[in-house]
Amino acid sequence: MAPSAPPAAGPLRHVLSAQEFDRARLETLFADARAMEAVLAAGGDERLRGRVMATLFYEPSTRTRLSFESAMLRLGGSVISTENARDFSSAIKGETLEDTVRMVSGYADCIVLRHPEEGAAARAGRVAGVPVINAGDGPGQHPTQSLLDLYTISRELGRLDDLQVVLVGDLAHGRTVRSLAYLLAKFRDVRLTFVAPAMTRMRPDITGYLTAQGVPVRETEDLLEAVPSADVVYQTRVQRERFHDDQSWAAAAAVRERYAITPAVMARMPARSVLLHPLPRVDEIDPAVDLDPRAAYFRQARNGVAVRMALLAQVLA
Amino acid sequence: MAPSAPPAAGPLRHVLSAQEFDRARLETLFADARAMEAVLAAGGDERLRGRVMATLFYEPSTRTRLSFESAMLRLGGSVISTENARDFSSAIKGETLEDTVRMVSGYADCIVLRHPEEGAAARAGRVAGVPVINAGDGPGQHPTQSLLDLYTISRELGRLDDLQVVLVGDLAHGRTVRSLAYLLAKFRDVRLTFVAPAMTRMRPDITGYLTAQGVPVRETEDLLEAVPSADVVYQTRVQRERFHDDQSWAAAAAVRERYAITPAVMARMPARSVLLHPLPRVDEIDPAVDLDPRAAYFRQARNGVAVRMALLAQVLA
Amino acid sequence: MAPSAPPAAGPLRHVLSAQEFDRARLETLFADARAMEAVLAAGGDERLRGRVMATLFYEPSTRTRLSFESAMLRLGGSVISTENARDFSSAIKGETLEDTVRMVSGYADCIVLRHPEEGAAARAGRVAGVPVINAGDGPGQHPTQSLLDLYTISRELGRLDDLQVVLVGDLAHGRTVRSLAYLLAKFRDVRLTFVAPAMTRMRPDITGYLTAQGVPVRETEDLLEAVPSADVVYQTRVQRERFHDDQSWAAAAAVRERYAITPAVMARMPARSVLLHPLPRVDEIDPAVDLDPRAAYFRQARNGVAVRMALLAQVLA
Repeated sequence: MAPSAPPAAGPLRHVLSAQEFDRARLETLFADARAMEAVLAAGGDERLRGRVMATLFYEPSTRTRLSFESAMLRLGGSVISTENARDFSSAIKGETLEDTVRMVSGYADCIVLRHPEEGAAARAGRVAGVPVINAGDGPGQHPTQSLLDLYTISRELGRLDDLQVVLVGDLAHGRTVRSLAYLLAKFRDVRLTFVAPAMTRMRPDITGYLTAQGVPVRETEDLLEAVPSADVVYQTRVQRERFHDDQSWAAAAAVRERYAITPAVMARMPARSVLLHPLPRVDEIDPAVDLDPRAAYFRQARNGVAVRMALLAQVLA
Repeated sequence: MAPSAPPAAGPLRHVLSAQEFDRARLETLFADARAMEAVLAAGGDERLRGRVMATLFYEPSTRTRLSFESAMLRLGGSVISTENARDFSSAIKGETLEDTVRMVSGYADCIVLRHPEEGAAARAGRVAGVPVINAGDGPGQHPTQSLLDLYTISRELGRLDDLQVVLVGDLAHGRTVRSLAYLLAKFRDVRLTFVAPAMTRMRPDITGYLTAQGVPVRETEDLLEAVPSADVVYQTRVQRERFHDDQSWAAAAAVRERYAITPAVMARMPARSVLLHPLPRVDEIDPAVDLDPRAAYFRQARNGVAVRMALLAQVLA
Repeated sequence: MAPSAPPAAGPLRHVLSAQEFDRARLETLFADARAMEAVLAAGGDERLRGRVMATLFYEPSTRTRLSFESAMLRLGGSVISTENARDFSSAIKGETLEDTVRMVSGYADCIVLRHPEEGAAARAGRVAGVPVINAGDGPGQHPTQSLLDLYTISRELGRLDDLQVVLVGDLAHGRTVRSLAYLLAKFRDVRLTFVAPAMTRMRPDITGYLTAQGVPVRETEDLLEAVPSADVVYQTRVQRERFHDDQSWAAAAAVRERYAITPAVMARMPARSVLLHPLPRVDEIDPAVDLDPRAAYFRQARNGVAVRMALLAQVLA
């Protein structure tokens, strides 16, 4: 993520990065998502009837794919889908992403792209004849995840200004938590606390950006000390694939245990606060916490459908 | 299968096991399935428009998946689908089935679950926010297969009471034939003949249950002797994966040949009788038999769509 | 391809081979495809609402599958899909294609079949209860590709008679270019030039057929000499899998480079001519050519949707 990229102006064509969303665009999106919740409660509608969405996934991400497909179907649209997009090129070793995207532009009205390489979505956007939505391009962006995270905070607490947000866990590698910190800086009186051990501290590009934006940032290794003043606790998953040897992974497991959210942690959180997690969770949130009304992670997953419905409706308008 | 499990009362929420279906519920289902055949003949209808079914398959079963998807589409609904549901957990080694099901409950109005572990469907049903239909959970249950088998008998012969039913082949491992025997015991004057060699005899849990229910059971190794009095001959497939060494598999092949249905066997079956098979068949039914009007196995596969339409309409009502 | 096979008479039931299409049937199809372009421009229609197409792919071909699925959805139909059709038979080692097709006939209103074995589509057509469309059967046929190629020529140049057509590259192995040559012979005053090195010359079955039909055929190894009089230049891809050892593949790479379409080649093509390629392309067309208005290969891919819509509408009428 390049925090300095400017937000795009004008109507939404592609959805390539979180940076394209300024405060006004976020507020419009979230109002639309709220309206989509009503559409969902009414059993969907037909506003995208006849429109076709292609999911073009160069690596499997069943969770993200199903969420997008559900969003499209709930608006009456239909879907063509592949989780084996590498097959486009494998047989002959070398069709470019650009050629594939040009071709799929002839089959569908929008393309949801998942790709292992950073910048792939921007490359696709440059040649596509139809809107491209980035569903994750490697270590780069996964903007719809960041948008649904922010929407969930807004939905649970009724505001995005004046918030104390605690981000916990692997802050060094977490694409999600990095983008979320970036987006939160667009709101007033947001204060961030980063809870992480030295090995997974938030990187200087983000902390520097936040400081430049006037966002108060505090770092601590003590979870129990951080949560009593939190409006939001955002727990992250430590991804096995980010740790390249067994020793660092063993150290990460120790971190996960030390920063796990348990009923004891919840007991110190304010009554009006909310616990988020991008899912899947492994052992970094105790299932005993699931029934706590402040545990919002399954509602968060469900919000992803509403946010994606709003985005699809915008780019296909 | 636990033959002692009680049938569920009240309207159908989940479809987890054949045991939930008592005679009244079976009769309702089969009347609905018959009505669905008329819907199919008329080109489908739109009663499930706007509803989304998720197929959540932890192992591929293309046949079962396509049958369910066809059923949903014929009623105007739509489908999100994965045969790689293990991907939900593989990357981070450990999302539970329960978490995945909670999440997919936010994407779809019902979940069709295929899973290699016995009891997986019941676990899913306990946490799902939407109805769960068991599409096979390992050695456990595959209730929609049993229901379509029974429906086919009813459809072909016009009754489910007063039947002589011959079950042939691998009765020890066949999930299908075990469930079918269990369900047949709910009807009057049903007599069962088990045709199998010693190595694949029906197990005592089922024979004991049938005897306790007053169902006459006869065992023989002689197929030709059994079929002349049959109303139904249900041939089963010997599954390679149930035989753990080459020697026992070689023995099974010999059994398959000895118990294969050939024109000579058909010649001894009554004029008003019916030959069933859950498919796929390999060499246990001679293709020369296919054109015999009593060979009902392709109609049986087609009936699966009508039965699944009826189940989907019930759980999504 | 057997050039002597007679065209089928009567209304279209299956689409198994290019040979079934005589001039009258081609003209009807292309008029229908042209109408489908208008349907696409209007956002699709609903004429196949309630109809279900099954894609039954025994090998992945994501490109072809997505094109067919898009065509079906644009007409309001729906789709059940598998790229793992081998799974039907793998678990038990031996369900026949015929049995699978009979079964899928109970799930869908038409079957789009991809299979690695020549003749598979014809075998499927003999037992299917619904129309079968051949989406490629190994070295045999891929009729919808040939039809969209021919449609694109007609669409770009406004005629199929009186054409100078230059076919370039691997003419020995290219299923596409062999079928196209066959179909072009049905039109008046068509002259063909084959540009290929000795190792990939067009085979005598096709050249003999063309000569017997009175079609002037010229062979040359000099691309630059051939293109100035061309109405159509059809470039083909050299497929890695057709070359069984590294040495012949290295030779093929040299051919590819020698016969690549570059801006210099385009400069010698007439102003009113068209460059086609079945895609994917690797290095046999320089991307610098893409913006040339005569470069029609992405329009050609898009035409595949219109042609498949027309075929689906015909077989499902």
